[in-house]
Amino acid sequence: MADSLAYRHLWTAPELDRLFEERGRLQRWLDILAALARAQASLGIIAAESARLITEQADATRLDLDRIAAETRHTGHSTLGLIHELQRTLPAPAREHVYYGATVQDLTDTWFGLVSRDVGTLVGRKLWALEGSLLELAATHRDTVMVGRTHGQPGAAITFGFKVAGWADELRRHQDRLVEGRGRWAVGQLAGAVGVLGFFGEDRLELRRRFCAELGLDDPGISWLTSRDRIAELAHVLAMVCATLARVGGEVYELSRPEIAELRETQPRGGVGSITMPHKHNPEGSEHLDTLSRLVRIHACLLLEGMDQQHERDGRGWKAEWVSLPEVCELTVTAVDLAGRVVDGLEVNPAAMAGNLSAGGADLHSEQILAGLSAVRGKHAAQVLMAEVEASGSVRSQGWVAAVAARAGLEQEQVAAWAARPATGAAAAMVDLVLDRASAARLEKKQTHEAE
Amino acid sequence: MADSLAYRHLWTAPELDRLFEERGRLQRWLDILAALARAQASLGIIAAESARLITEQADATRLDLDRIAAETRHTGHSTLGLIHELQRTLPAPAREHVYYGATVQDLTDTWFGLVSRDVGTLVGRKLWALEGSLLELAATHRDTVMVGRTHGQPGAAITFGFKVAGWADELRRHQDRLVEGRGRWAVGQLAGAVGVLGFFGEDRLELRRRFCAELGLDDPGISWLTSRDRIAELAHVLAMVCATLARVGGEVYELSRPEIAELRETQPRGGVGSITMPHKHNPEGSEHLDTLSRLVRIHACLLLEGMDQQHERDGRGWKAEWVSLPEVCELTVTAVDLAGRVVDGLEVNPAAMAGNLSAGGADLHSEQILAGLSAVRGKHAAQVLMAEVEASGSVRSQGWVAAVAARAGLEQEQVAAWAARPATGAAAAMVDLVLDRASAARLEKKQTHEAE
Amino acid sequence: MADSLAYRHLWTAPELDRLFEERGRLQRWLDILAALARAQASLGIIAAESARLITEQADATRLDLDRIAAETRHTGHSTLGLIHELQRTLPAPAREHVYYGATVQDLTDTWFGLVSRDVGTLVGRKLWALEGSLLELAATHRDTVMVGRTHGQPGAAITFGFKVAGWADELRRHQDRLVEGRGRWAVGQLAGAVGVLGFFGEDRLELRRRFCAELGLDDPGISWLTSRDRIAELAHVLAMVCATLARVGGEVYELSRPEIAELRETQPRGGVGSITMPHKHNPEGSEHLDTLSRLVRIHACLLLEGMDQQHERDGRGWKAEWVSLPEVCELTVTAVDLAGRVVDGLEVNPAAMAGNLSAGGADLHSEQILAGLSAVRGKHAAQVLMAEVEASGSVRSQGWVAAVAARAGLEQEQVAAWAARPATGAAAAMVDLVLDRASAARLEKKQTHEAE
Amino acid sequence: MADSLAYRHLWTAPELDRLFEERGRLQRWLDILAALARAQASLGIIAAESARLITEQADATRLDLDRIAAETRHTGHSTLGLIHELQRTLPAPAREHVYYGATVQDLTDTWFGLVSRDVGTLVGRKLWALEGSLLELAATHRDTVMVGRTHGQPGAAITFGFKVAGWADELRRHQDRLVEGRGRWAVGQLAGAVGVLGFFGEDRLELRRRFCAELGLDDPGISWLTSRDRIAELAHVLAMVCATLARVGGEVYELSRPEIAELRETQPRGGVGSITMPHKHNPEGSEHLDTLSRLVRIHACLLLEGMDQQHERDGRGWKAEWVSLPEVCELTVTAVDLAGRVVDGLEVNPAAMAGNLSAGGADLHSEQILAGLSAVRGKHAAQVLMAEVEASGSVRSQGWVAAVAARAGLEQEQVAAWAARPATGAAAAMVDLVLDRASAARLEKKQTHEAE
Repeated sequence: MADSLAYRHLWTAPELDRLFEERGRLQRWLDILAALARAQASLGIIAAESARLITEQADATRLDLDRIAAETRHTGHSTLGLIHELQRTLPAPAREHVYYGATVQDLTDTWFGLVSRDVGTLVGRKLWALEGSLLELAATHRDTVMVGRTHGQPGAAITFGFKVAGWADELRRHQDRLVEGRGRWAVGQLAGAVGVLGFFGEDRLELRRRFCAELGLDDPGISWLTSRDRIAELAHVLAMVCATLARVGGEVYELSRPEIAELRETQPRGGVGSITMPHKHNPEGSEHLDTLSRLVRIHACLLLEGMDQQHERDGRGWKAEWVSLPEVCELTVTAVDLAGRVVDGLEVNPAAMAGNLSAGGADLHSEQILAGLSAVRGKHAAQVLMAEVEASGSVRSQGWVAAVAARAGLEQEQVAAWAARPATGAAAAMVDLVLDRASAARLEKKQTHEAE
Repeated sequence: MADSLAYRHLWTAPELDRLFEERGRLQRWLDILAALARAQASLGIIAAESARLITEQADATRLDLDRIAAETRHTGHSTLGLIHELQRTLPAPAREHVYYGATVQDLTDTWFGLVSRDVGTLVGRKLWALEGSLLELAATHRDTVMVGRTHGQPGAAITFGFKVAGWADELRRHQDRLVEGRGRWAVGQLAGAVGVLGFFGEDRLELRRRFCAELGLDDPGISWLTSRDRIAELAHVLAMVCATLARVGGEVYELSRPEIAELRETQPRGGVGSITMPHKHNPEGSEHLDTLSRLVRIHACLLLEGMDQQHERDGRGWKAEWVSLPEVCELTVTAVDLAGRVVDGLEVNPAAMAGNLSAGGADLHSEQILAGLSAVRGKHAAQVLMAEVEASGSVRSQGWVAAVAARAGLEQEQVAAWAARPATGAAAAMVDLVLDRASAARLEKKQTHEAE
Repeated sequence: MADSLAYRHLWTAPELDRLFEERGRLQRWLDILAALARAQASLGIIAAESARLITEQADATRLDLDRIAAETRHTGHSTLGLIHELQRTLPAPAREHVYYGATVQDLTDTWFGLVSRDVGTLVGRKLWALEGSLLELAATHRDTVMVGRTHGQPGAAITFGFKVAGWADELRRHQDRLVEGRGRWAVGQLAGAVGVLGFFGEDRLELRRRFCAELGLDDPGISWLTSRDRIAELAHVLAMVCATLARVGGEVYELSRPEIAELRETQPRGGVGSITMPHKHNPEGSEHLDTLSRLVRIHACLLLEGMDQQHERDGRGWKAEWVSLPEVCELTVTAVDLAGRVVDGLEVNPAAMAGNLSAGGADLHSEQILAGLSAVRGKHAAQVLMAEVEASGSVRSQGWVAAVAARAGLEQEQVAAWAARPATGAAAAMVDLVLDRASAARLEKKQTHEAE
Repeated sequence: MADSLAYRHLWTAPELDRLFEERGRLQRWLDILAALARAQASLGIIAAESARLITEQADATRLDLDRIAAETRHTGHSTLGLIHELQRTLPAPAREHVYYGATVQDLTDTWFGLVSRDVGTLVGRKLWALEGSLLELAATHRDTVMVGRTHGQPGAAITFGFKVAGWADELRRHQDRLVEGRGRWAVGQLAGAVGVLGFFGEDRLELRRRFCAELGLDDPGISWLTSRDRIAELAHVLAMVCATLARVGGEVYELSRPEIAELRETQPRGGVGSITMPHKHNPEGSEHLDTLSRLVRIHACLLLEGMDQQHERDGRGWKAEWVSLPEVCELTVTAVDLAGRVVDGLEVNPAAMAGNLSAGGADLHSEQILAGLSAVRGKHAAQVLMAEVEASGSVRSQGWVAAVAARAGLEQEQVAAWAARPATGAAAAMVDLVLDRASAARLEKKQTHEAE
């Protein structure tokens, strides 16, 4: 669907066009060829003038994409079309210095390095913003009481802030993962035919170092032509990000049921939900977070499978990366952007939350009653007593308070007092804990930013 | 990569553009809207003139894709852009009769029905041709002796025809599956808002029957808005097809190693294998069959996961189908075409096959020696004796024949005679069996074709 | 968890112990060895007396499992321990005729054939029963009106019978798949070292035929040592079965929310839902259907991946089958049994269904109003008008009937009449269609049963 | 297969029995209950004497597993059987203080925390040892020349040490990941009914801190009942570990083909490779690494999927973890142990490596000739010239040196000199780089160990 004019906005992020859209990708490839030429010139491997000219001509806006495509198809070689197209614009000596001693995978893996770094950074920045929104939401609703549900059934009271703080905490861990993994995936590749740079002379490792430095990437130490954990790891972190967002979306989706009505997505202005049922307000953003997450997940699994490569180059897993890595990146950035819109436009209905809680009645205080009764009767005895009350049907007729009091031979007031206890436990305290932890982490990072 | 001019031929099949390329897809959608209008007109639900006009105007070449895209984005509704674009070309009364009582999913699911039918038929036809090539190859090499390998190690003799017949037999089963499943997936959808066609009157089921008939699809009996086994099944059959092709490709890839040299892909004319290592003849087609199969597999798994849907419509799994089903179809047809090229251009080297077999020496007749020895000594005694011979190292010094004869106190001639027995067992007979079975099936189907 | 005394009932089915529990599996393996001996004796390959003795001693209750385990570990050979244990009970000549010319995979693949046949039949029988329950439920609630929900939001009316009929229809298709696939997967394997039965003489294919016939399996025609589509297909059909059951479970789970309260699982007698919250009635069976389905799905995907095998035997994918195929079978039968309990104990609350529908008010008749208005104003004009009404907020203040009437300049009575139309459309008719179709299919199969 | 006496050694690791085997698991659960009691006693929530008694009685060797199983089945509650069994051994007051205010998931998630910590540490320690073996192997074979292969085809020279260093480098990154993630997954859980610890009083967060500290786990800050990224991450790191080992295994498998014969697994003493073909030496360990990796991978993908949970507790994904997390751990430790045996017993054949390289002849120096020719003719001109030479067939008749010299009008000596250049490029230097990097990292960690 990425090539559908009508639907590509649902699956791709315009910000990534400079990485993945054909001309954007080719520009990146030209940048890499130019960086290689400059590194080679700095070591006297090619003429400085060639490097200058190549850098100058490395401009994708001038490329004839149809000609490149035709030659790619004709030769079956992945980059020869581009090389020839670049050479057309160069004088004879410089022409020979394009793509000097490199291979397709040097180019594409270094591009993966750039992609990993840039998408990692971009997603990190967007998660920072989304985390900010969630922290604010958690703070706002720190004490907004609502039903906590387990197994789809109302259980006991929580606060909405507590729920949101759990999402924010998950995003914080993803941000940590993005920072920790960066050194592993933001690396270049200059490996040559079989990984040992046999084309070049003694300065070959220095060449690789300079090549990576030109592009702001780390030097990998040893070629990683068939060592793809770097890519599998990035993909998995992004898939976890999407899974978290799908979880948020799922929550919005379920709590938007009119029978519950605690949350609602803002409908986009001008949007048409349903032609056939004009009254509908569908949680479409929330749904789509789930869809995006599924797709990212399967590609992440494929990239994990792709780690099992053979010998010094293996086209089978590698070519699958050509499809899956861009897909993972596009879908993830799309998801993070969409999650931002869903969260920022989230309509929270504290009255409905309170209403659902009180509709649950003493049921939702059964944990409190149990705690109170445990204190006077022992916990397991309390449990057994309450299970008997429940089984006897007297809860239905009398309610928990009267039924338990009767069976336990206690005053109804005492049981009622237990049931009336504020029941959100450590919800607010946990929100504070998450807020504090996030503030500290965000402050530290901000200071890093400022120091830069 | 489907939207890359340079690389899309590796991932998509031009024959499917009429189904999946944007204008092709929209034409199919217009066909469906026209069929609906005609069915409605035949029941007097809309005016006959409207149906005529809608049918006449259902021409995707006239659509302004940018305008459709803009409106799709603005409204967030999947088909409103197309509807309005079609309405622009119609006079007022007919305008009101476009998409009358239908929903997005009626349109896209019916399109899925058409896609399933057409891709199923296309893949079936291509598999028929590929099976034909394989049967011929199996017949040609019915008696071409080669090494059979287990766990990557030479084991005993087989024939190349036997290997190929195993592939052909697998393709036959896939063809059967495509035929058997067709009735389940080549169905239309007309369900309305929640599946019960509430918009229409008493003739609603008759309307659905006529609508499906107009398109050459079966009537589903009951709405299948959240009943997606049809799609999961088709995808899995296609994924199995690709897995078989990947197995063929893997065999070509491994047996093309120069150390083995039994098979080789014909290099495409004008192709450039490796810039850096001009001597290379890479089995690129075979590799790519593996890559394609992986991708189809993950999408098939996603479509299986997508069966778990909620209530009467569930956008989460459904929208994932929008990506995965076309992907599965495009990649599969690409794979079948590629497999055809690989198989038709396969260079078989009987001399290398024979050479590898004789290089294995008596090792590759150890099963024969065991059989001979078992007849005179009992099988387990024979086994133990041969294991002892192997462990003693005397095989290395003397060879199997002398070593076994010495340990068993037999004449070397007797053991040598066992080792010299033609060793391909039932290989040729199994080839004949596969050929006969396939011929019968193909004849029957051919007669069906002729009867049509 | 299958080896946990406390939890194995959640993941395994006692009925399958005879196939998968160690002694049960070994009994099946002994049965296969005995069948092989009898087939061989019938062709004079081994002595008739040996076959008689082997058949007589093929009794797993007498096996010393510890001794088998120790020898399996010591030799690293998968079946040598069993062979030796069987030989211990036999006189010398018969001893040599055990496992005569067979290989591990001949044994395990033939066992897979038996497993596929028996599990296929068992699941088919259980699905038949489950379908019966669902058909009855659909008939009972053919006209029980409830809310149809799309995207998690109430849309318009359906009947509960319509929902259930969709489940039953899906199960019918699975039963068809089980029947169609049976000929592909209920086959034996006798292939020998590399698939061509080199150990045996000219009667080798006749031997295979008799061997398969002894076990009631089909003859495969050609060895399928690395042709695993048979297993991938069975696993996928079972995974689809589980996905359907997970869908049923998901529906029960969601509609059991007290805010909806339309369905409820019967709590098992003596069951304890929650210690901490004594009031809880969790839909645990429904939840577990989802869990089981996930597990089956990943194994089915692994078995699909396992089709890509190399040469004449490939331990990598094959050994994964040893884990995944039994797992798929155990989990599926567990799921079908559990689904039976959930469905048979399902508490349906028609009052709550009706209540939720009327709580939705005219909203849930918006499709009817649209249909009525379309008839007098044209459909798109009607749509635009209703969208404007919705956007204006007048629905909230006046309700749909008054608001539409006002905007359209119509009498409220007319709009009210539209809104009052029975709105379940073709729900009952589709139920009838499913019931008729299923009855016909079930009758036909019953007649087959009776004829047997 | 984990419950098969005969085969469980192939799928499970005895070292993990104390975590996953039923009694071992229950012991851990009792440890957790005892830690909870002590933490509660320290805050005066229960009597100190109760904590003392519970700690004393927390001994799984005394448990009656059948009774626990029966009660688990009867109540359908996951831990009630265990609780009652423990209570039987306690006097009345202490009996009431077992499992005080806890829930099943508090117990199992804290157990997951212990499992994650212990398995993470164990795998880390084993990877350290395996890395040590690989580093030694890389050092030994730093200069052992062999063929580098791309797309399955000989390309140019590398050294075996270079290949091994790539494996070691991958394992180093996995060790880093295990260290980095530990803080995220080695945490306890004390959440109560809906995550907010409503059962307890104001000291509830202090209670959780003490509870975690008792067990040597980190405090999670906020409940993570439905926040499962911790588990998904651990599983993915372990799946990546296995994927690396499968890659190593795949290399051994392929290079063990007798046609290549560069590597060979040592056959285990007493092992029986093939009954039918006594000559076979199958790379069974290497194969099994692949099988194990596949299984771990699918479970890791399931655990990723499991992150999408609902509300405050969701049995669907959670219960899948009960199966998948232990499975991932067992299979991974099994794989690392097996990889250790394969690597330590690896027979490297430098003569075969050298022989295969020289068999490739000048072909494998085509990159060197290209480099030489590029220096005098320009790289693309050189490339075109060599492609023409290749296409003309003169390489086959004359060999590369003569053919290139003739076409280029150069002296054969000059071309021969290029072809004779030592061709392993940066192989040795990259080995050194990996060794240095690993030494530094290992030294640092060793110092940490000593400081402890």
